[in-house]
Amino acid sequence: MLQYRAPIRDIQFALHELLNITPHYNAIPAYSEMSRELIDSVIEAGAKFAEEELSPLNRIGDEEGCRLEDGNVITPTGFKEAYAKYVALGNGSIAAPTEYGGQGLPLSLGIVLGEMNGTANWSWGMYPGLSHGATKTVEAHGTHDQKAIYLPKLISGEWTGTMCLTESHAGSDLGLIRTKAEPANDGTYRITGNKIFISAGDHDMAENIVHIVLARLPDAPKGTKGISLFIVPKFVPDSQGNIGDRNNVICTTVEHKMGIRASATCALSFDGATGYLIGPPNKGLHCMFTFMNEARIGTAVQGVCSAEGAFQGALKYAKERLAMRALSAPQAPEKEADPIIVHPAVRTMLLTQKAFSEGGRALVYWLAMQADIVQSSTDEEPRKRADEMMSLLTPIAKAFLTEMGSEAAKHGVQIYGGHGYIREWGMEQIVRDTRIACLYEGTTEIQSLDLLGRKVLQSKGQLLMDFTKIIHKFCQANEADTSMSEFVKPLSQHNKTWGDLTMRIAMRAMMNPDEVGVAAVDYTYFSGYVTMAYIWAWSAKVALDKLKLNPPDAAFYQAKVQTAQFYFKKILPRVHTHLELLETGADVVLQMDADAFAF
Amino acid sequence: MLQYRAPIRDIQFALHELLNITPHYNAIPAYSEMSRELIDSVIEAGAKFAEEELSPLNRIGDEEGCRLEDGNVITPTGFKEAYAKYVALGNGSIAAPTEYGGQGLPLSLGIVLGEMNGTANWSWGMYPGLSHGATKTVEAHGTHDQKAIYLPKLISGEWTGTMCLTESHAGSDLGLIRTKAEPANDGTYRITGNKIFISAGDHDMAENIVHIVLARLPDAPKGTKGISLFIVPKFVPDSQGNIGDRNNVICTTVEHKMGIRASATCALSFDGATGYLIGPPNKGLHCMFTFMNEARIGTAVQGVCSAEGAFQGALKYAKERLAMRALSAPQAPEKEADPIIVHPAVRTMLLTQKAFSEGGRALVYWLAMQADIVQSSTDEEPRKRADEMMSLLTPIAKAFLTEMGSEAAKHGVQIYGGHGYIREWGMEQIVRDTRIACLYEGTTEIQSLDLLGRKVLQSKGQLLMDFTKIIHKFCQANEADTSMSEFVKPLSQHNKTWGDLTMRIAMRAMMNPDEVGVAAVDYTYFSGYVTMAYIWAWSAKVALDKLKLNPPDAAFYQAKVQTAQFYFKKILPRVHTHLELLETGADVVLQMDADAFAF
Repeated sequence: MLQYRAPIRDIQFALHELLNITPHYNAIPAYSEMSRELIDSVIEAGAKFAEEELSPLNRIGDEEGCRLEDGNVITPTGFKEAYAKYVALGNGSIAAPTEYGGQGLPLSLGIVLGEMNGTANWSWGMYPGLSHGATKTVEAHGTHDQKAIYLPKLISGEWTGTMCLTESHAGSDLGLIRTKAEPANDGTYRITGNKIFISAGDHDMAENIVHIVLARLPDAPKGTKGISLFIVPKFVPDSQGNIGDRNNVICTTVEHKMGIRASATCALSFDGATGYLIGPPNKGLHCMFTFMNEARIGTAVQGVCSAEGAFQGALKYAKERLAMRALSAPQAPEKEADPIIVHPAVRTMLLTQKAFSEGGRALVYWLAMQADIVQSSTDEEPRKRADEMMSLLTPIAKAFLTEMGSEAAKHGVQIYGGHGYIREWGMEQIVRDTRIACLYEGTTEIQSLDLLGRKVLQSKGQLLMDFTKIIHKFCQANEADTSMSEFVKPLSQHNKTWGDLTMRIAMRAMMNPDEVGVAAVDYTYFSGYVTMAYIWAWSAKVALDKLKLNPPDAAFYQAKVQTAQFYFKKILPRVHTHLELLETGADVVLQMDADAFAF
Repeated sequence: MLQYRAPIRDIQFALHELLNITPHYNAIPAYSEMSRELIDSVIEAGAKFAEEELSPLNRIGDEEGCRLEDGNVITPTGFKEAYAKYVALGNGSIAAPTEYGGQGLPLSLGIVLGEMNGTANWSWGMYPGLSHGATKTVEAHGTHDQKAIYLPKLISGEWTGTMCLTESHAGSDLGLIRTKAEPANDGTYRITGNKIFISAGDHDMAENIVHIVLARLPDAPKGTKGISLFIVPKFVPDSQGNIGDRNNVICTTVEHKMGIRASATCALSFDGATGYLIGPPNKGLHCMFTFMNEARIGTAVQGVCSAEGAFQGALKYAKERLAMRALSAPQAPEKEADPIIVHPAVRTMLLTQKAFSEGGRALVYWLAMQADIVQSSTDEEPRKRADEMMSLLTPIAKAFLTEMGSEAAKHGVQIYGGHGYIREWGMEQIVRDTRIACLYEGTTEIQSLDLLGRKVLQSKGQLLMDFTKIIHKFCQANEADTSMSEFVKPLSQHNKTWGDLTMRIAMRAMMNPDEVGVAAVDYTYFSGYVTMAYIWAWSAKVALDKLKLNPPDAAFYQAKVQTAQFYFKKILPRVHTHLELLETGADVVLQMDADAFAF
């Protein structure tokens, strides 16, 4: 069984050495008291919980899954108890506002804890993770009374929440949803319809579940502009927050899934359930999109979790497992064969995992810092800048990091050989668990349309230009440093290409809008590889600077530089294929008649 | 649930129009009577069996898996009955020699049936598939008596067979195996040791199981040169082939695996079991390698199965599922949204699956034709040529097609969106089932070392030159045909590059043998993409020629040409990244100290 060990040293590198997170926090009035000591102590407590409570439940959760008994979902052995500890420790309320009982710490710190929980046991992390979305919805759009009733319980973790969007015929295209909300004469609504794929839709870990439901009012316009949001509690609370009658919402199915089997994915049937309108009528999708970016950062984290978990498992095995000799000369002549870490193919896979894990970690933390600013800064200008950067980088991080997480998980299985295919070793579970990340919160393909169509082209390239300017400045600042030239030269070149190729796509899209759809996925990969190249060049810069001081942990910084070198030499060249594909145009994709795909 | 439909039209295109298989058969004396009618009737019967008997059991098999009860493995509902029908129909004996009751048809025809069975239900196909290896071993290396006792039952399917190679500490590196064979005083041996990952190691489908076991004689040299082969029957037969006492071999575990859950993957314990030496002492690995290429072609087929199965499932869904509108203009204005096949990202994934499935099919059939010649031709010169081509192309086909099969399966899930992650839709099962193909019969990384190190460099490039010459001749022959230039130009260029880059790797490898290990996997991908480019250019040529005759099924040939165009424009450019990686050398892979991978 895999035992998760929180990569504290690398987390500290990313937060403190790369991102200078303490001054970042202190520039926001709400976080002026944050100190490195406080940050590190929160992380260490989180690490302990993830390692000791969640990691041991990961295989059990996968084996047992969730089951539906008499209309109630039962979670796997130990899940409920771990959740009770989590609530008792207050881990769930870290980034919540103090006025409703939260600890008022920054959102980005919650992301760090989420990463550790998620690597140890992604399925378990789904329960508090989904609460977060419901909490944010009530926080942003609830009335005074709604906040007073729901927020304290959601924040403490006594209650959990869900987001009820998908219906069986309506996933990516939410404009098609049919669930109805009919006004009752007491100001409430009767919600009727069927939702599917509702994570944490029912379970035995909390006394109440607060569903946020997308539904249509009787007079609603068709499509996405006729969707409203409703709070539908499993048990209807009174004005003091005491739970009352069971509402007319039941779990009809727990899905059998490829992975995250311990996460209860429910079909929910609402049969005239009592609901409360939250936010303005018909503006439901708009209300949700205000924090959709945050949820997507949360999913991007899953890519990091997958890469880190697969890396930890594979590294251990690669050092222990003996097979064949290095082609150059025996490396462990005293043993009957060399450990497989000597073999270049194994090293290549391990270094790829390491580059994705550490590079992805730095990227999501950086992105989460933008979310801190958007959420809590009191200065308009930095908020606007951070919001725009977040708009651009979120679909990149979500699509790219989750796909890279899947690739890293695959390498984990491959390094284990046949053993990777056997469940008890835990490597194939990561492949199954992480595949969902490329699907939910918008598939890779949907993220790509969002990036290229909505974020880049609709802003007439402005969001992209603002970002490439940051990279350009970094390259300029380090252009004279010969130790950085192996990073700066290719980064600078690809950064320029990014702008140029966007122009060419924009021109083609004016002639044929389908060119956007044809280009989008390759554009996202290109953007992801270049963004991560920036992260790795930046990391190398920090590490090279530290090495000049002859630090006692020079080996750590040396490995950082070597990983950056690996990224630039062995991963970044993938952009060449995406670039070529971006120039080949739409014809070969569009020309085949739908009936001619098979005979 | 997915219902498999055999792609008869495309199978016929590959066999008859592309590969001219009837004259190929007729050039071999043993197959001089083969006719198109016979070939097609065998395929149609095989298609009916795969569609009607095997496809409906595919989900059941995955859900139920195999279980161990009182030391016996129980296969899922229906598996045993389907196997009995298969035996009754004589489907398993098609390519077996007539003198032992086989039908004496060509091996390549068996591959076609194997593809259909495997797409419909890969797990089920493992049982007869493994018998094939054991049968071939007895056929090639058995004594007259061994053949007389074992072959008729193995060929009829009354008995099945296994290959017992792997031990828990010895997978890719078989030189490490420890199972012992001690001579008894009656000419037999006592086999003692533990084997793992034995497919079809125990089950309830046949009255006896014939294990071919790798073990060491008492005086055996260390490593790979001290391994011998033994026949170890589950029930020891008498000289008439009547089964007698239970042998001392038991199944101790049925593995819980990521996929192919209905295939019984057993740990077997041999405790002084009676075994019979087969082939010369200490030459066991050599004996096995004589038909290892064939087994690897059988695994390459799994890549085609995965691509075809995922394509069939995804295409159906893409035509039915409605979501959003085409970016250019609504394509189905009468519906509430367009079918998702209008979206370029969906089309790209479907065309990728189609290109891998049809291109892979033609490649494995072509390869199987080489095996026909090696096995049955009476002319030395063609046998040698075919053997060399098979040596080169088999690791390419095995590694490349199984990785492409995995990619195609992933696209299947992605096209289904969240539904792809739910087990009942069947798409995620393909991802899980097909992942084993990149692991067993030698991982992708092991195949790559075999290709670059053993096949290409050890032959001083001769095997490769012989193959690139075939491609070169094709390009020359079609150079003047302007309708072919979009294929011939890039193919010709990459074909030349293939030779040039091999020279450069060979030069670097002389300085540092680890360069081979660093280059091998990218070299295999490069080789795979170029080989498949040749297949697609060749297919386009055949289709374009047919189109000149204005055939009634012009749409089929038009789609062939369009798929070739898609392959050349949207898949083949992947070689550029592999080429660049092949030039960046070994340093960034080798430099990191094993202890510096994590802190």
